[in-house]
Amino acid sequence: MSVEQAISGLKFGADGLLPAIVQEDDTDRVLMLAWMDAEAVRRTLTTGRVTYWSRSRNEYWRKGDTSGHRQYVRGVEMDCDGDTLLVRVEQIGAACHTGTHSCFDDRTLPAVVGDPREIG
Amino acid sequence: MSVEQAISGLKFGADGLLPAIVQEDDTDRVLMLAWMDAEAVRRTLTTGRVTYWSRSRNEYWRKGDTSGHRQYVRGVEMDCDGDTLLVRVEQIGAACHTGTHSCFDDRTLPAVVGDPREIG
Repeated sequence: MSVEQAISGLKFGADGLLPAIVQEDDTDRVLMLAWMDAEAVRRTLTTGRVTYWSRSRNEYWRKGDTSGHRQYVRGVEMDCDGDTLLVRVEQIGAACHTGTHSCFDDRTLPAVVGDPREIG
Repeated sequence: MSVEQAISGLKFGADGLLPAIVQEDDTDRVLMLAWMDAEAVRRTLTTGRVTYWSRSRNEYWRKGDTSGHRQYVRGVEMDCDGDTLLVRVEQIGAACHTGTHSCFDDRTLPAVVGDPREIG
């Protein structure tokens, strides 16, 4: 499968974007979620560095070019519908612009824990 | 923080939805991504079972009610922007409707692996 064949098998939303989940390859931690258009996917698949489309700035965003917190590609998978990517990375420094390693650190919501032995 | 306070701190898209990444608590595997509106988040936080909004069927979808492949909540975190959730679950059976454990199984795209020692 070529890169162009892979991209043509993806389903982008009405805005031309799909979500990319970023998981740290060494630790399996989920670091962040960001958005890619076809060109961002192409750059990610072919350059070894992760590139997104910034919805707030309306421009391509190669992670780490400003912050130094680069993401190197270890592997990319699509989901069963082809409308979400899972990008496994080697993360340099903090993935989150707030300085935490993951964007999900220390942001726990109150949730009832489900137990299959108690809840149907 | 109450459940309603938590929900009011979330940022839903123009369609009233946000993406929820689902990660298996025991293995750290990323299983799937699906969508929630405020009510799906409320049900997920308060019942111990994960509920989504189905964009294709336009209805609430409590994972496993049809398939038996239930997801029990272990914890829920939001990201730094409050526009993505990470739901850690105990997964019964296969998360993917195709029968694979994760929706990302066996769907690898061709990607150049990046090496910080070689690529700037």
